[in-house]
Amino acid sequence: MNKKITIAIDAMGGENSPEKIIEAVYLFLKSNKQDDFEINLFGDSNIIKKKIEKFKIISKSVKITHADSIVSDKETPLTAIKNSKNTSMWNCIKSQLDGNSDISLSAGNTGVLLVISKMILKMMDKVSKPALAGLWPNKKNLTVVLDLGANIECDDKNLVDFAELGSALYKSLFRNEKPTVSLLNVGSEEIKGTDLLKQTFKRLKRLSSDNNFKFQGYIEGNTLMDGNTNVVVTDGFTGNIALKTAEGTAKFITDNLKMSLTENFFSKFSLIFSYFSLKKFKEKLDPRKYNGAIFLGLNGPVVKSHGGTDALGFYYSIDLCYKIIKGNLMTQIKNNLNHLNEENI
Amino acid sequence: MNKKITIAIDAMGGENSPEKIIEAVYLFLKSNKQDDFEINLFGDSNIIKKKIEKFKIISKSVKITHADSIVSDKETPLTAIKNSKNTSMWNCIKSQLDGNSDISLSAGNTGVLLVISKMILKMMDKVSKPALAGLWPNKKNLTVVLDLGANIECDDKNLVDFAELGSALYKSLFRNEKPTVSLLNVGSEEIKGTDLLKQTFKRLKRLSSDNNFKFQGYIEGNTLMDGNTNVVVTDGFTGNIALKTAEGTAKFITDNLKMSLTENFFSKFSLIFSYFSLKKFKEKLDPRKYNGAIFLGLNGPVVKSHGGTDALGFYYSIDLCYKIIKGNLMTQIKNNLNHLNEENI
Repeated sequence: MNKKITIAIDAMGGENSPEKIIEAVYLFLKSNKQDDFEINLFGDSNIIKKKIEKFKIISKSVKITHADSIVSDKETPLTAIKNSKNTSMWNCIKSQLDGNSDISLSAGNTGVLLVISKMILKMMDKVSKPALAGLWPNKKNLTVVLDLGANIECDDKNLVDFAELGSALYKSLFRNEKPTVSLLNVGSEEIKGTDLLKQTFKRLKRLSSDNNFKFQGYIEGNTLMDGNTNVVVTDGFTGNIALKTAEGTAKFITDNLKMSLTENFFSKFSLIFSYFSLKKFKEKLDPRKYNGAIFLGLNGPVVKSHGGTDALGFYYSIDLCYKIIKGNLMTQIKNNLNHLNEENI
Repeated sequence: MNKKITIAIDAMGGENSPEKIIEAVYLFLKSNKQDDFEINLFGDSNIIKKKIEKFKIISKSVKITHADSIVSDKETPLTAIKNSKNTSMWNCIKSQLDGNSDISLSAGNTGVLLVISKMILKMMDKVSKPALAGLWPNKKNLTVVLDLGANIECDDKNLVDFAELGSALYKSLFRNEKPTVSLLNVGSEEIKGTDLLKQTFKRLKRLSSDNNFKFQGYIEGNTLMDGNTNVVVTDGFTGNIALKTAEGTAKFITDNLKMSLTENFFSKFSLIFSYFSLKKFKEKLDPRKYNGAIFLGLNGPVVKSHGGTDALGFYYSIDLCYKIIKGNLMTQIKNNLNHLNEENI
């Protein structure tokens, strides 16, 4: 691959930006010694330059494009199109349309990011609704789950598209030639669930014989993290509820654990001996490692980082962008969708 | 209250029954020294008598009613009505219809239990769909969540009914005169969610001024366990996905923790000092404590215990039955529904 991987970053979005963004770039440059990428930062060039000096970044791979304004947190998707032109977020995605970058990354306002990404990059020909995909930790590695909230209502065509998009993402990230795909439902038997799910089940079963993915049927929420499936497909309402319930449960348990392990002298003392083990445990479950939801189905990928994450969390999002493009996501998606075209329904 | 609380128990349902059921009865008798209840066991009287001897139960409060057959795990809701007559489960619920018990409890086949409960006890006049309610641990106490899977598709009338049923359950369990109710959604702003949720939101807001409950608006999955709401209302599809995802997440985290705390000599050694703290942590999160989903909306409450739980888990379900009747659940439900009747839509 001769062309460099070019990542466009909205340097102004999210809490404590651009400070955390520039620190994240610094972490990325430190960890990735390849010469095959370029980072384009969009935002207030004066402030960005100062932060670049602060972190002593000297690299030909980092470029700055000035933008006068930023998208406010108060902006809604409805007002965004009028008010967000020429913001750092807008120009960041625009650079992708102009062919100057391969992928965009922002920690800014989610609703606005989805709306203007769709407006600028437009939907791919064969896809009618885009999806937000996330990476969930499991016993073995990671699972791609989509949609996490881009569309609260979906039909069977959308869900089939999500299976193709999600398996393309999995392939680009893990070089797996035939990812396994499951459909989230309230039971694993074929007769369970809504008519929509039954119809989608039939179509995915039919598609499963091609080379894009292997359909494994229904999966229930309690086995989602067993690691027996690579891609989990669901509508945006259900996916969002599942994601947030998992986050809430994880927080509830770890808060309780923290309280228990610091409640008295003996438990505090025990921490000395379990320090490294608990550190590893904490690291494995650190949500920053899984930071970054991928917006799929447009003519170019856009990654949304949590607004409240820190430099390390944002670093993982930059790394995700790099891996996605290195794994040729858009080519994988096009191949998958070509196949879909041949489906006889 | 002069009349005794009478709990009908299907002694044959679930794994390791009737052994675990009788052991659970033994635990309940040991913990509850009141003279205000009676337990009616349904099943093979020979086997039950032997188990009663094994656990040395000598109590006038325990009665046995013989049933020749049991509901098989392989039975489906479709075949159940034909095949389950005169089983221990059937006769257990039938005794409620005949006025010989106040509540039924079974650890048997869930689908069959729901179908035959509905068939025997019938829906309450003003309720069109029943709901399965569960108790979720939260930072402060417990939250009632419903529906957990009795109906995968619901309209706004059903969801409003669930709010009334759920708050009646909460009142009966916690003597709270005006529980708070929230609606599960993908965002907390009023404009979020499906048309169905928006319509339900409006109706619950209107009802919130009466004396049954205080409607707090939407709640997201990540704050479900914060303990800021007493009752969470959702359709059975979403509720089931949320419940199972929470179970899966809890298992994933505690499995990882277990692995970490036993991975080497030092972490194992630390367990000596944190033993009691971790024991308390484990006890608080023990799913057996929350065992028992309550089937609401019929002319009498039916409780479903996990099939795979042990004697302690089943003991908690018996205790739940006792508390529900002691708190006058059916009267609370009728009061709530009377109010609903006056709603002008």
